[in-house]
Amino acid sequence: MNTETVQRLYKEINNFPIFDPHTHINPQHASAGSLGGILSYHYYTELCNSAEYDPGWWEKGISPDELLRRISSKLPLIHNTVQFSWFLTIGEEFLGIPKRDLLDPEKLESINEKSKKLMAKSGYVEKLIEKSKLKRIYLTNQFNEKLDGFDNSFYRPCLRIDPFSYFADRGPALKEMAESTNIPIKDSSSFNKALNRIFAYFKENNFAYASVSSWPNTKIYPVGKTREDAIIKKIMTGERLSDHEHEDHVAYTFLLVTELCKKYGVPFHLMIGVDKEVYEHGVEFGTDLVNSTNSMRGYDYLFNRYPDVRFPTSVLSDTQGLELTSSAWIRHNVYPSGHWWYLNNPTDIAREVSRRLEVVPLHKIIAYYSDAYYLEFILPKFRMYKYTLAKVLAEKIESSKYDPNMIELNEEKALGLAWDILWKNPQAIFNDSSAS
Amino acid sequence: MNTETVQRLYKEINNFPIFDPHTHINPQHASAGSLGGILSYHYYTELCNSAEYDPGWWEKGISPDELLRRISSKLPLIHNTVQFSWFLTIGEEFLGIPKRDLLDPEKLESINEKSKKLMAKSGYVEKLIEKSKLKRIYLTNQFNEKLDGFDNSFYRPCLRIDPFSYFADRGPALKEMAESTNIPIKDSSSFNKALNRIFAYFKENNFAYASVSSWPNTKIYPVGKTREDAIIKKIMTGERLSDHEHEDHVAYTFLLVTELCKKYGVPFHLMIGVDKEVYEHGVEFGTDLVNSTNSMRGYDYLFNRYPDVRFPTSVLSDTQGLELTSSAWIRHNVYPSGHWWYLNNPTDIAREVSRRLEVVPLHKIIAYYSDAYYLEFILPKFRMYKYTLAKVLAEKIESSKYDPNMIELNEEKALGLAWDILWKNPQAIFNDSSAS
Amino acid sequence: MNTETVQRLYKEINNFPIFDPHTHINPQHASAGSLGGILSYHYYTELCNSAEYDPGWWEKGISPDELLRRISSKLPLIHNTVQFSWFLTIGEEFLGIPKRDLLDPEKLESINEKSKKLMAKSGYVEKLIEKSKLKRIYLTNQFNEKLDGFDNSFYRPCLRIDPFSYFADRGPALKEMAESTNIPIKDSSSFNKALNRIFAYFKENNFAYASVSSWPNTKIYPVGKTREDAIIKKIMTGERLSDHEHEDHVAYTFLLVTELCKKYGVPFHLMIGVDKEVYEHGVEFGTDLVNSTNSMRGYDYLFNRYPDVRFPTSVLSDTQGLELTSSAWIRHNVYPSGHWWYLNNPTDIAREVSRRLEVVPLHKIIAYYSDAYYLEFILPKFRMYKYTLAKVLAEKIESSKYDPNMIELNEEKALGLAWDILWKNPQAIFNDSSAS
Repeated sequence: MNTETVQRLYKEINNFPIFDPHTHINPQHASAGSLGGILSYHYYTELCNSAEYDPGWWEKGISPDELLRRISSKLPLIHNTVQFSWFLTIGEEFLGIPKRDLLDPEKLESINEKSKKLMAKSGYVEKLIEKSKLKRIYLTNQFNEKLDGFDNSFYRPCLRIDPFSYFADRGPALKEMAESTNIPIKDSSSFNKALNRIFAYFKENNFAYASVSSWPNTKIYPVGKTREDAIIKKIMTGERLSDHEHEDHVAYTFLLVTELCKKYGVPFHLMIGVDKEVYEHGVEFGTDLVNSTNSMRGYDYLFNRYPDVRFPTSVLSDTQGLELTSSAWIRHNVYPSGHWWYLNNPTDIAREVSRRLEVVPLHKIIAYYSDAYYLEFILPKFRMYKYTLAKVLAEKIESSKYDPNMIELNEEKALGLAWDILWKNPQAIFNDSSAS
Repeated sequence: MNTETVQRLYKEINNFPIFDPHTHINPQHASAGSLGGILSYHYYTELCNSAEYDPGWWEKGISPDELLRRISSKLPLIHNTVQFSWFLTIGEEFLGIPKRDLLDPEKLESINEKSKKLMAKSGYVEKLIEKSKLKRIYLTNQFNEKLDGFDNSFYRPCLRIDPFSYFADRGPALKEMAESTNIPIKDSSSFNKALNRIFAYFKENNFAYASVSSWPNTKIYPVGKTREDAIIKKIMTGERLSDHEHEDHVAYTFLLVTELCKKYGVPFHLMIGVDKEVYEHGVEFGTDLVNSTNSMRGYDYLFNRYPDVRFPTSVLSDTQGLELTSSAWIRHNVYPSGHWWYLNNPTDIAREVSRRLEVVPLHKIIAYYSDAYYLEFILPKFRMYKYTLAKVLAEKIESSKYDPNMIELNEEKALGLAWDILWKNPQAIFNDSSAS
Repeated sequence: MNTETVQRLYKEINNFPIFDPHTHINPQHASAGSLGGILSYHYYTELCNSAEYDPGWWEKGISPDELLRRISSKLPLIHNTVQFSWFLTIGEEFLGIPKRDLLDPEKLESINEKSKKLMAKSGYVEKLIEKSKLKRIYLTNQFNEKLDGFDNSFYRPCLRIDPFSYFADRGPALKEMAESTNIPIKDSSSFNKALNRIFAYFKENNFAYASVSSWPNTKIYPVGKTREDAIIKKIMTGERLSDHEHEDHVAYTFLLVTELCKKYGVPFHLMIGVDKEVYEHGVEFGTDLVNSTNSMRGYDYLFNRYPDVRFPTSVLSDTQGLELTSSAWIRHNVYPSGHWWYLNNPTDIAREVSRRLEVVPLHKIIAYYSDAYYLEFILPKFRMYKYTLAKVLAEKIESSKYDPNMIELNEEKALGLAWDILWKNPQAIFNDSSAS
């Protein structure tokens, strides 16, 4: 590692403003509110749950204070992880706690008390935003959420389609959709109409894109209106769909959503390949896993059918990394986006960044998103990415000096490249040129 | 990166003569003829097509001059890619254009004019061959191609079997085979006989091997004569085969080809795992993709059944990289060959080279092939590989100094190793000892 | 590579005592007995078999002396491999032969003669154990093996379940089980009872865990008693099970074994994903391969059903590396264990170590096991791992200095971390705290 180049590059890249094109932030409760709130993030609860078999230690709905009391003594078990290192940055940057103090379980309760006061102060969130240089934050919104009460150019809504696609027959989504749109849903036409109304509402509120977290080996293909009529009817009776019906409904909904993305001029952001709820003893949000046997082939019809819709795409498994890179290489409407969840570690980020920079047109690459639930996490997660990027770029700078084919990549050009993928590209791809 | 070691190693390796065991060169039109011809290569047209959604910008059959006019302004969108860096080397080495000039879209039209004169000069090809140190170039030939009119010890023919295996029922291959061999094809026996005649003709013309670009999850197993009789009959009627019939015909043909490889004493070169024509809006040759869910298990019967036939093998997906390495480690007749297509980037090459050198008997490794359509591409592609190899070897040299098990790998030995995989091994594996 | 840091780290790590949690050592014949015995290890016979097509050169049961005579001239073909480098360390450390001499095929016969005397000397094994700093060696035992005649706190037995699960219908396991337990096996109850007795016997003899080398895409699910009754009956008639019956029997047996692991308080060590006997021309133990299309999803039921059983887990394919890491990240009872077989090369070890250290709670990581058949192999294999670990740690130390989130990882802490995964964790996970 060329430490001086890495340091220089990182320093500059760290100064960039942050455009975060995917989070789960709630603008009304954007901050974690306390150290306990920070530690309620599933990355900590799931790691501590995994570190020690201790049934009942965690319960849904326990207060952040109680969570902190229960989790403190477990934290040393995960001190080695990058996830824990995010916590250190949060404590240091936003609460002014020296990192070493955060290693000591005994100190956390008093830090928690201090944190609650600090984080409740007026101006705390604004300072956090300034310190983190946050310029744009994309949200994850349910179809029936109210999209007012916040600055929706800063916090841009995004429509999540999972509840009425994959979960349509295992939750109240369609009934809620009928209520929120005032359209009785009884067949495919009314489903279309209701979804259209939802898109219109989201469009009025400046939404950035539709998105989905898709299951492994999802396949998209045309599904007839009559077939979907029957499926909608069955869902409305409360019955569970058969596997075939479920596949058909998912395919139908993906195509309908894409049609509406086209109509409303927004991308469809795919996050491919999560097996939901496979770990029975997990904490909330800590029960899903990656599946290594999962090809992007099932999306061919979708990509081909809608050449004029953009598909920013993340994958959950390293086994799909080359598939995504190759798709972005030849398919004009596939854009590699970030490093999702189980791939969001320096080892896997480094490989994927390196690959993408080698063979994908630069302006198609969306560097990173935080996936954060609280504002506090955006800075440390972006820093992890940026530092990894700085290391990859330093290596490319050095290698380019003697590369027989390439023109030398100097630091200035490398920084330009970082700027493009972190700042310029998401603006262009999500039609968000007003960010500044 | 130990820059001095890398430079010294690269300098030496770059001086090696080039043995290129797989290309798509047409010896009658071996040069691209112009800068526009260079840019007609699908790596550029597909990347530019992917970089910008612009339906109709490219059409099949447009002239190189017209292509150059259309593609020039798009090239800056792919300046970051390694594929573009090949273009820089071609311009600099064969046309004498400074790399920086090639970055300027405005200059390309005048460079194109200059290039046409230069590349039309007598002796251009010979000089290119000398400058690139090309000593052996393997071709990709259709079964009914004439194999004369060129020096077939320098340009060695290779028989491509895709048209009469995978595409037998979706093209005129069998009818053309009947015509070219004068054997009416009406059942498995006449198919065998015709293919035998083709092999004999290729053998007379010093062919190196039979080859195929195989579809994911191809499975080879014995297929009876009666079954194949019916399949051949159906193909000859122009009907499309059922999926089962198609699988049977592919398996039958693979085994028949291998039988003939055995008879004629040549290897069967496998290139495993391409999904054909999945991108509908692609340029020519820019529509195929890699599939990550694809095991080599389907070839077990083939490898076992023909212990005395050599199978140089490439894979298209990183997910098969360890499968190929492990197969070459234990199977005596599997030889890892090159870094194909979507794996032909420095990131993936580095990992695979490193793995192969650690666990596969050295003399079984075929370092690289260019897959080039024009002679101009061989040099830059081999340079990319050689530079990556130099970096991997420099790392191994340094690591070996303190390795508790290994004998130190000095630069001389590392160069010997590079020489073997780039020069000596392909000669031995393809029975081509006359290269010098 | 920061050579000085690597050297310092390696020197210290190499001084650690060795806890080897998986081998195939026979305590009665723990040493290879001769150089020929060393070279009988399938890593050498299979590589030499792969290096040169030479039918009949190897036969089952040939003497070590004869093997040495036949294999000597082939060894130079595998000089490049890491497997060969283990041989160099064995020769140098235990036989006092300079590494260079071991490169010369002509010298091996005389070295072999010398080796036999040296290795027959009283105290040879004790010295080897001392020199290698072996403190704990886990065995692989058949259900009907006698577990006496050796120090079973040093050589700890482990029960291998493959013969009566995957191979129940293709070998005499059930009949032998009936004999060895004196329980006539005629239905699921008697099978349960016999296995219970076997576990009791193993428990009396301080066994560490049950283990299995599982086939790709194994799926575990509940199987009813009546169904298993019929299956057991069929097996006892000598008939081969249908595919469905085979899957059911495997699932039934996995669950039964896990139930007994729970009862007897031991882990169940899974080694996932080997395709058995796919290479027909291979030497003994040199016929199995890795399959890249293989998800861990089939084990969900097993992991969920037994939250209080520990599952140390190895995978055979890099495509499962992230699956294993992610499972260990969220599942409390999955422990990533070592680097198995085709993944046991520095390239793949480095990636997996790096990933695991980033996202898995430290105390859940089991660093390495040798899988050795003779004591001599433990030292070189552990050295390969330890050197790779030292390189990964040196990189992390350097990177941590400028990492914006992490606390600096100094050498002392890095060594502590190495100590934990190599020494402390296996003791805790296998309830083996008496190691010292």
